[in-house]
Amino acid sequence: MILIFTGNGKGKTTAALGQAIRALGHGKNAIIIQFIKGPWISGEDKFFANHSPLTSHPSLLKCGKGFVGILGDKFPISEHKKAAQNGLKIAAKAIRSKKYDLIVLDEINNAVDLKLVKSADVLKILKSAHPELDVILTGRNAPKSFIKFADLVTEMKEIKHPFQKNKKSMKKGVEY
Amino acid sequence: MILIFTGNGKGKTTAALGQAIRALGHGKNAIIIQFIKGPWISGEDKFFANHSPLTSHPSLLKCGKGFVGILGDKFPISEHKKAAQNGLKIAAKAIRSKKYDLIVLDEINNAVDLKLVKSADVLKILKSAHPELDVILTGRNAPKSFIKFADLVTEMKEIKHPFQKNKKSMKKGVEY
Repeated sequence: MILIFTGNGKGKTTAALGQAIRALGHGKNAIIIQFIKGPWISGEDKFFANHSPLTSHPSLLKCGKGFVGILGDKFPISEHKKAAQNGLKIAAKAIRSKKYDLIVLDEINNAVDLKLVKSADVLKILKSAHPELDVILTGRNAPKSFIKFADLVTEMKEIKHPFQKNKKSMKKGVEY
Repeated sequence: MILIFTGNGKGKTTAALGQAIRALGHGKNAIIIQFIKGPWISGEDKFFANHSPLTSHPSLLKCGKGFVGILGDKFPISEHKKAAQNGLKIAAKAIRSKKYDLIVLDEINNAVDLKLVKSADVLKILKSAHPELDVILTGRNAPKSFIKFADLVTEMKEIKHPFQKNKKSMKKGVEY
C-alpha cells in the first residue's frame, strides 16, 4: 500500500514515525529514509539510535544535506541532488531486498518539488514494490502523479501555528 | 504548548506517537493516555510495552472501552463515560505531577464529541499545565474552544482512502 502525508501543516514526518513504531510493535521491519534533512540531530535520530531493533540494518537513514537554498544552505544544488539520488538508490535497494514491511521516504515529495529527484524515477521504484509492502511518502506539495498512484492520501492542513510570524523558529522535541 | 491533530484523515494518533518518540529521543518524558480505544492490542501497545523507558510509569495508558455505539459495542454509555472520566483524572494527575514533558490525550476530541467528557473540564485541566509542558489532543471534531485555546492545530484531511467503501476494514500495522 502506498500512503502519502502531504500538506503545509505539522504532523507529516511524525505520522510516518508513528506508523513505523506501530509496525515495529507488531514485529514487522521498518526503515525510514530521510531526504533533505541535514546533519542536525533530531529526537527520532536519538530514539532510533538507542532502540533500533535491526542492528545490522539501521532503521533511520539520513540522505540529505539540509535545507535547500534557504537558512544558510552552504551546498551547491548538485550536492543536494547527489544526496537525494543516493537516497533513492537506497530506497530501491530496500524495496528489492524484501526485508521490510514498511519503508518511509521522508520528505521525498519536497525532493521532487525541488527537482532533486524526478517523480517518474520515484514512481518506477514504487511500482517494483511487492504487494504486502507499505511505503509512506511525506512532504509538502506531493506531485499529482504520486497522489494518483497512492492508495491513501492525507493532507496535513495548517489551521494554526505558533510560528506563523517567524517560520524559522523551531522548538527542540516538537519540530525536530 | 497545546497541539491539536484533528480532521477525518489518517495520521492523527500516529503523529502524536511520532511526537512522543521524538520527545523520548531527546531524553524527555512522555505519556500517552488513550481515550475510547478498547482492549484490542495495537502495534503501539506492543512497542511501548517492550520499549518503555519508564518502567514505573507506563508510557501508554488505555482508558477506553472501545468504539462507542458502533461495531458491536457491548457497553452502556455510562461505562464509556466512567472510563473517559477516569482517563481525565489520570491526565490531571499527570499534569500536576510535572513529571512529563509531553502528554498525549489520544482521541480526547472524540470523547468530548461523544459527550463522555465535558470540553470545559478538559480545558480546566489544560489551563493547569506548566508552561514547558506540551499537550497533544487528537481526534476528529475538535471542539472550537480547544482550537481557540491551542497554540498549534493541524487538520488531517482525507484526500484518498482505500477503505472508503468499507470503513470497517482495518489493516494490522497500518490502522492499529
